Amino acid sequence: MSKSYRVAILGATGAVGTELLELLEIRNFPIADLKLLASERSVGRSLRFKGENLPIEAVSDRAFENVDIVLASAGGSTSKAWAAIAVEKGAVVIDNSSAFRMNPEVPLVVPEVNPEAAANHQGIIANPNCTTILMAVAVWPLHKIKPVQRIVAATYQSASGAGARAMAEVKRQTSAILQGQPPVAEVLPYPLAFNLFPHNSPLNDLGYCEEEMKMVNETRKIFGTQQIRITATCIRVPVLRAHSEAINLEFETPFSAKEAREILNSSPGVKLVENWETNYFPMPIEATGKDEVLVGRIRQDISHACGLELWLCGDQIRKGAALNAVQIAELLVEKIYSNHQLKLMFQASH
Amino acid sequence: MSKSYRVAILGATGAVGTELLELLEIRNFPIADLKLLASERSVGRSLRFKGENLPIEAVSDRAFENVDIVLASAGGSTSKAWAAIAVEKGAVVIDNSSAFRMNPEVPLVVPEVNPEAAANHQGIIANPNCTTILMAVAVWPLHKIKPVQRIVAATYQSASGAGARAMAEVKRQTSAILQGQPPVAEVLPYPLAFNLFPHNSPLNDLGYCEEEMKMVNETRKIFGTQQIRITATCIRVPVLRAHSEAINLEFETPFSAKEAREILNSSPGVKLVENWETNYFPMPIEATGKDEVLVGRIRQDISHACGLELWLCGDQIRKGAALNAVQIAELLVEKIYSNHQLKLMFQASH
Repeated sequence: MSKSYRVAILGATGAVGTELLELLEIRNFPIADLKLLASERSVGRSLRFKGENLPIEAVSDRAFENVDIVLASAGGSTSKAWAAIAVEKGAVVIDNSSAFRMNPEVPLVVPEVNPEAAANHQGIIANPNCTTILMAVAVWPLHKIKPVQRIVAATYQSASGAGARAMAEVKRQTSAILQGQPPVAEVLPYPLAFNLFPHNSPLNDLGYCEEEMKMVNETRKIFGTQQIRITATCIRVPVLRAHSEAINLEFETPFSAKEAREILNSSPGVKLVENWETNYFPMPIEATGKDEVLVGRIRQDISHACGLELWLCGDQIRKGAALNAVQIAELLVEKIYSNHQLKLMFQASH
Repeated sequence: MSKSYRVAILGATGAVGTELLELLEIRNFPIADLKLLASERSVGRSLRFKGENLPIEAVSDRAFENVDIVLASAGGSTSKAWAAIAVEKGAVVIDNSSAFRMNPEVPLVVPEVNPEAAANHQGIIANPNCTTILMAVAVWPLHKIKPVQRIVAATYQSASGAGARAMAEVKRQTSAILQGQPPVAEVLPYPLAFNLFPHNSPLNDLGYCEEEMKMVNETRKIFGTQQIRITATCIRVPVLRAHSEAINLEFETPFSAKEAREILNSSPGVKLVENWETNYFPMPIEATGKDEVLVGRIRQDISHACGLELWLCGDQIRKGAALNAVQIAELLVEKIYSNHQLKLMFQASH
């Protein structure tokens, strides 16, 4: 583990970019050199990393020279424009956009679920969508014991899913309403303060939005099965940076809440949060800043003999994006073999 | 229709009480005399009704003399204490609490669904729980065409469900957070500003809270069938006064989204809100103050051959409570026969 790596963050100034920077520092990722790449308009700014001010550089072909790992989080079109160039220069790109996720040659990885898939990359590894990652971490440990047949999910998605500007907008709108002023919506299509609305991504012919189809298609790819039937209703709520999900699962045979609780209590990346006396269960303000997906209210579904209900919250920027990407980078540098828990998990998933 | 009635509102000063007052006025309910009843501590106050200031009277045995209809909305223990007395004095009690809802001798009525049940009262008619009313209005028209087999619901419930004090609390908490202060929770168990949490009603042995069991049991009673299997996850969200619900329905045979849309478009109490081009669907801020349940995002469920997804929003205080109670009162005074739409609906439900 004395080896260290040359890393670049593409989209360093965004909500996920700054979180990537923080995580590389606090997880002590073995860095030989760190480049912060962004668009021209951020050049001149700098960001703190381990006590130093690192300058923002403009993205260019040459910026990817002598880079081992690129953590890309600047949106799909930026990833499409630069990923192939970075790979050609010899880097591995861990991409947080949706650009390559469903490409059959690109592994789509949640380290707690399918770490082995990362090994089969051809230069690009895709980081799944936030809602998908959170659901995958909670559902996979159960699916491994008894295959899930069907998932009915309803999400409660925070403003951060639409970026730092949406988080600022919901605060501005809230402040306006409290002062008796009308809320102004510029980043999101409708006011989110004291309101909520279906996720505003493009709708397909069946009426499902892109966000919902990500939960359907990405989960199947990560779990390595097309057999799971999934439906989702994705809703944006006036919460700042953690997503919540109500998840109804159907199995072929009954799955007791007790057994599910025991399994999830010892599953990587999951923290069980359940106090039935005080009605204390996962809440987005408590998931904020946490690495784990908080899971609770595990109940046997009274409407289905083989059903199970789960409730979860997870930090959208952290495990839903930046942390998962850094964990993939850690898999790449074989930190996996020095980390007992991850090693056990890796073996178990084969 | 020249006959008019002596009406009393029990719990006149609460969020639902003041809404009842407003609705009796704007719907021009045939009132001969209106009494506003509340606890001792509200005596001395008065409320406006049709340009007059009506004094609040303390509730007592005598207060129910010469009253035809009592609209009760002061909580379960107050209803339990006074309903029998009011009935003994000759009044019919329309009760908004959960005290009598599951009593087999008490009709539980949503006028758009089972108006005929109101006729069989023995002095008390129960008004269902808010989440149940909203779901019933949207699901019943489909259920009449093809019986619903199973419902998986996830709710997004506003602060008003916990009363006017909870609405004020979420505003105070929000204001505190925007000023960098910690939110203080006194009415609800946890901060609701920029947060959400599972409904804090008591949990049963299966882990379902009372609110969820109301959706299960009350819906079955209103629909007149124990055959529908229902599960629900009830969540409080930082919205002021309209509830939202993601509803997954399973039928025995396929139900096309097109057919469901046509049915709901002409169903009483429902307003279809769907613009697929602009991602414009029901939102709680737009349901606020409206009589109708806004329904949209009607989709065929891609995870189930006979499944259908619905999204709805409805004013929790209005159709979820006060309006439904006033509509029951209108049924009682046979306004039904002078209202074409209600009359047709009444005939259709037989």
